Amino acid sequence: MDAEIITIGEELITGHTTDHNGAYIARTLTDLGFSVRRITSVGDSLEAMEEVFRDALRRVRVIITTGGLGPTDDDITKKAIVRLFKRNLIYHEEVLEDIRRRYAERGIDMPAINQNQALLPQGAELFTNKLGSALGICISEQGRIFISLPGVPVEMRQIMNDSVVPYLQGINKGPSLFVRKLRTTGIIESKIAEMVVPELDLPEGVRLAYLPAYSGVDLRLYAEADNELEAREKVQAVERYLEKVCGKYIYGYDLDTLESVIGQLLTDNDKTVSVAESCTGGELGRQLTSVPGSSAYFVGGVLSYTNQAKIEKLGVHPDVIGEHGAVSEECARAMAEGCRHEFATDYAVSITGIAGPSGGTEEKPVGTTYIAVASAHNTRVKLFRLGADRSVNRHRSVYAAMEMLRREILDID
Amino acid sequence: MDAEIITIGEELITGHTTDHNGAYIARTLTDLGFSVRRITSVGDSLEAMEEVFRDALRRVRVIITTGGLGPTDDDITKKAIVRLFKRNLIYHEEVLEDIRRRYAERGIDMPAINQNQALLPQGAELFTNKLGSALGICISEQGRIFISLPGVPVEMRQIMNDSVVPYLQGINKGPSLFVRKLRTTGIIESKIAEMVVPELDLPEGVRLAYLPAYSGVDLRLYAEADNELEAREKVQAVERYLEKVCGKYIYGYDLDTLESVIGQLLTDNDKTVSVAESCTGGELGRQLTSVPGSSAYFVGGVLSYTNQAKIEKLGVHPDVIGEHGAVSEECARAMAEGCRHEFATDYAVSITGIAGPSGGTEEKPVGTTYIAVASAHNTRVKLFRLGADRSVNRHRSVYAAMEMLRREILDID
Repeated sequence: MDAEIITIGEELITGHTTDHNGAYIARTLTDLGFSVRRITSVGDSLEAMEEVFRDALRRVRVIITTGGLGPTDDDITKKAIVRLFKRNLIYHEEVLEDIRRRYAERGIDMPAINQNQALLPQGAELFTNKLGSALGICISEQGRIFISLPGVPVEMRQIMNDSVVPYLQGINKGPSLFVRKLRTTGIIESKIAEMVVPELDLPEGVRLAYLPAYSGVDLRLYAEADNELEAREKVQAVERYLEKVCGKYIYGYDLDTLESVIGQLLTDNDKTVSVAESCTGGELGRQLTSVPGSSAYFVGGVLSYTNQAKIEKLGVHPDVIGEHGAVSEECARAMAEGCRHEFATDYAVSITGIAGPSGGTEEKPVGTTYIAVASAHNTRVKLFRLGADRSVNRHRSVYAAMEMLRREILDID
Repeated sequence: MDAEIITIGEELITGHTTDHNGAYIARTLTDLGFSVRRITSVGDSLEAMEEVFRDALRRVRVIITTGGLGPTDDDITKKAIVRLFKRNLIYHEEVLEDIRRRYAERGIDMPAINQNQALLPQGAELFTNKLGSALGICISEQGRIFISLPGVPVEMRQIMNDSVVPYLQGINKGPSLFVRKLRTTGIIESKIAEMVVPELDLPEGVRLAYLPAYSGVDLRLYAEADNELEAREKVQAVERYLEKVCGKYIYGYDLDTLESVIGQLLTDNDKTVSVAESCTGGELGRQLTSVPGSSAYFVGGVLSYTNQAKIEKLGVHPDVIGEHGAVSEECARAMAEGCRHEFATDYAVSITGIAGPSGGTEEKPVGTTYIAVASAHNTRVKLFRLGADRSVNRHRSVYAAMEMLRREILDID
């Protein structure tokens, strides 16, 4: 069944607030098997709101709005609703009593302005708001369902989960949707497409999207079918194909991150890691320790920004830097091995590169980065050219380093 | 002048990605004096896209889209554009050469699929993408301006800043708008409002917005006037007032960042800094070294995640940890002083805290963080309670630490 989401507020269309509500509702509806066709943000203007509402009602059967239900003058969603559905606002004494009681519990006299919150469209089903004074409003008319929720995220989410989801579960009779994300890194979008496309034969109702980021490319599969089981089976067939043609680049699924996958691998194998960072200045350590519980395997690290720090803190021999430079295979190797020794860890990862914007040469342009992973058995070093943008090449370095570490732990090339 | 933003991608309407691009473009357009009427997210469907494009062209003069410009099959924005504007796709040899050259610089053979990226709508103005292969496309027809940008956020932002903003500045002929941002940290939104509001008397045409983030609160001033000089003068009057009432919290203006301000202070005073990070795992070092040229003052650091690393790498006495714990005023002090000694820097900053989600106690709940700044004269330590969310409290720690460093350099309290 088709749905649209409309988020209301001047702060959205001026860009001062990012629309997290829209994504939350979209994800919830998608999980329920609805197909969301659009998410529209619109300001606090009655005309604009009415136009957006009217157009959406023409296109889809279910509409959910957020925002504009507060008690102040700029909250006019209810006004737009009663104009659109040609209904009156009715005063609900029991709603006002409930709001008054809630204020009393906090030891506050209810501000008079809250009386507005008890005025609600005639004939609407009302959804309880446990955390605030703006109730959810649900109007069902001529095969259309129009639901308005407050814009405060925690209130919206409470009403979604407690009232809207059960309400909609009874209604959706359309095809089920199943979504699966395969997460890859170390390969660019167009390369992976070249590996995937030749023999790819997507079953009816299945779509594949490539979602590139500097951290890697996600392959997202969507399947529509009559029921969830069927949708899931359709996805799984494609998933197996993708694993066959590019499995080596797939580090995880759905909510996995590269750092959480590494954390799990280290924990499972009872191993530890340390880091020696030059150009990334701490970004690798930060990423690895963003995982709750990372203290079980992350021991520590050195930010060796200067040559002296590389020599003194990591035991890199001055001649290595003198002969090959701080950005060299030899220096990366010495940093990783020195770090592993200093912190007595099973693995150590080093990054040394030219982040830029200055410092590049013809031979070693900005973005030139050596990454090494040292283990008990050996030390692997790889050269990467990660582009001229400082923030981008640092970010890419961290993901390249994590991927080298993952492969070292798994002993794959 | 009215504008609309359309963001494209299945991941948006399924709610798997939050639409940060829409907000970024909306903010940029608002700053340029445009009125954004709607932000619409739509999936990778040609029909839906065409309908959204067509409707927007009826309503407003400027439209900016993001997404769907990649080389793979699910990227169909160009197809929708040529259908809508009845144009052909033209092959641009020089664009392909440029993409090929960029791949070569990274030592990668350009995948053949990238040839698609050189097919661009006839008669469009093209905006250079310095970070990727999808150019910005700008079509001007019958008083309408239609701009398509890639969906990768850094690429979109680069093209917005370098090409779209200058292009649109030449077009918007409304009243002049002057925008000034005062950047504060170390104080919450409602507190700063309490300081600002009592005597605030905003001149006609001036608006003040509070923009809270975890890194601090920006005070954004907008002034509209017949010409830029007048708008600027209106803003400056309010700016002087704000500096009077809350100047101590203002660390910079407009494009300043806390790390860039610190970098300038250290450079100007010919001083150096090092860091000792426990719970933040490298995020402070990363932030300080995100500034180009930071090697002039950032020497290095230790990620002392374990107690042993604090003892061995920073010279923290085991008794300090034994008696007071690793998250204590005494340990933070010893870490900062040890770090300053180890790296022989003018300043050293340490962070030790309980990032969570586990590890909290009644006395030291998750979010408890001690931050110290050591200098030649003294060591200051402060206790912060930064909330239960791991990612948020780490982020707040880094900003609190940088603000302590800034104040130490300036010798203000």
